[in-house]
Amino acid sequence: MSDYILHEFFRSSASFRVRAALKLKGIDYAHRSYKLRAKEQQTDAFRALNPQALVPTLQTPDGPIGQSLAIIEWLEETHPAPPLLPPDPRGRARVRGLAYMVAMEIHPLNNLRVLQHVAGELGQGEAGMAKWFRHWVAQTFPALEARLAGEPDTGRYCHGDTPGLADLCLAAQVMNNRRFDIPLDDYPTIARIYDALMALPAFAESLPENQPDAI
Amino acid sequence: MSDYILHEFFRSSASFRVRAALKLKGIDYAHRSYKLRAKEQQTDAFRALNPQALVPTLQTPDGPIGQSLAIIEWLEETHPAPPLLPPDPRGRARVRGLAYMVAMEIHPLNNLRVLQHVAGELGQGEAGMAKWFRHWVAQTFPALEARLAGEPDTGRYCHGDTPGLADLCLAAQVMNNRRFDIPLDDYPTIARIYDALMALPAFAESLPENQPDAI
Repeated sequence: MSDYILHEFFRSSASFRVRAALKLKGIDYAHRSYKLRAKEQQTDAFRALNPQALVPTLQTPDGPIGQSLAIIEWLEETHPAPPLLPPDPRGRARVRGLAYMVAMEIHPLNNLRVLQHVAGELGQGEAGMAKWFRHWVAQTFPALEARLAGEPDTGRYCHGDTPGLADLCLAAQVMNNRRFDIPLDDYPTIARIYDALMALPAFAESLPENQPDAI
Repeated sequence: MSDYILHEFFRSSASFRVRAALKLKGIDYAHRSYKLRAKEQQTDAFRALNPQALVPTLQTPDGPIGQSLAIIEWLEETHPAPPLLPPDPRGRARVRGLAYMVAMEIHPLNNLRVLQHVAGELGQGEAGMAKWFRHWVAQTFPALEARLAGEPDTGRYCHGDTPGLADLCLAAQVMNNRRFDIPLDDYPTIARIYDALMALPAFAESLPENQPDAI
């Protein structure tokens, strides 16, 4: 029985971030999968772990932890090697800033419940939903590309040659973009980093299509 | 001349978080204000500091830092006292998780550019925009209230009796809610914590109406 149980959904990009972080850190974990469209996570048993009934949630020896980036910061503090943040405060601020460009400016607007709300309650339909998704990627990806292309701290990955927090968020977003056919032609640095990340088993093995519950 | 210059907008709730964090830490700073509706931040000079031309951005001896939570984590690492995160990883995960419930689930859906997009491009108008704002608060505030009311780690503030990262996010959101007349009757614990926070000069002095550029 593993000390760690990840409650997740194969297609959830926040679940992807945590899967890849656990694999980068070499932490063994068991997992439970939920089909969000079928609301399988809406049970009393799961609410006892996470009152919001949101995935991902990681059961740990420290108790259950929700919110993908809170999980990843906890993993970084309790399992420092290999690091997902650089050692210097300036570098850490850069990596967190890049991560939040995705995690606070794109992803919250483009997750399943928001897309369903835009398509349904706001009457935008499937086409309007796709337009909405692409709009918010297009609002932030040019600035993300400009920073990654122009800043000397960028290396093989977002920050130097060690994959970290910003890479987890970037890879999850590019992966998610595939569902809406967003080409990366205008984002050559993002594309280069994504390809480099997908050459790492921790990232490739975390893709939705490589999960046992993928449908 | 201060070592710190905060580029901000008086009404921005992300700017509020950073103002209150600087004051809690007792860090002197100068500030530059921008009227976002007039796009005053869209200048080459400001883009040189932040390619996204977003507030808040903090100029520091370590260079300019964007993204409110990246700034606050940097402040915590470089000015540890008084702390904005508890010392133990479990407590830190709880505080970050509570902070992200606001900062990743509510705020990104309710900031100015999203509200303008919903009202304009999506044709929802002013009434639809207000409904949208209230919808996303109502999606997360009940779970936030339940956690704060039910978890033994809650104290005078979100986590014990020391104001921290979760309080910065909670106070900024409640402050923002005032613009859409969202009553706190169903959220007594959130209301109690907000009142306790506003009894602190660092929080009260950071309110929009107490900024020199308030209009």
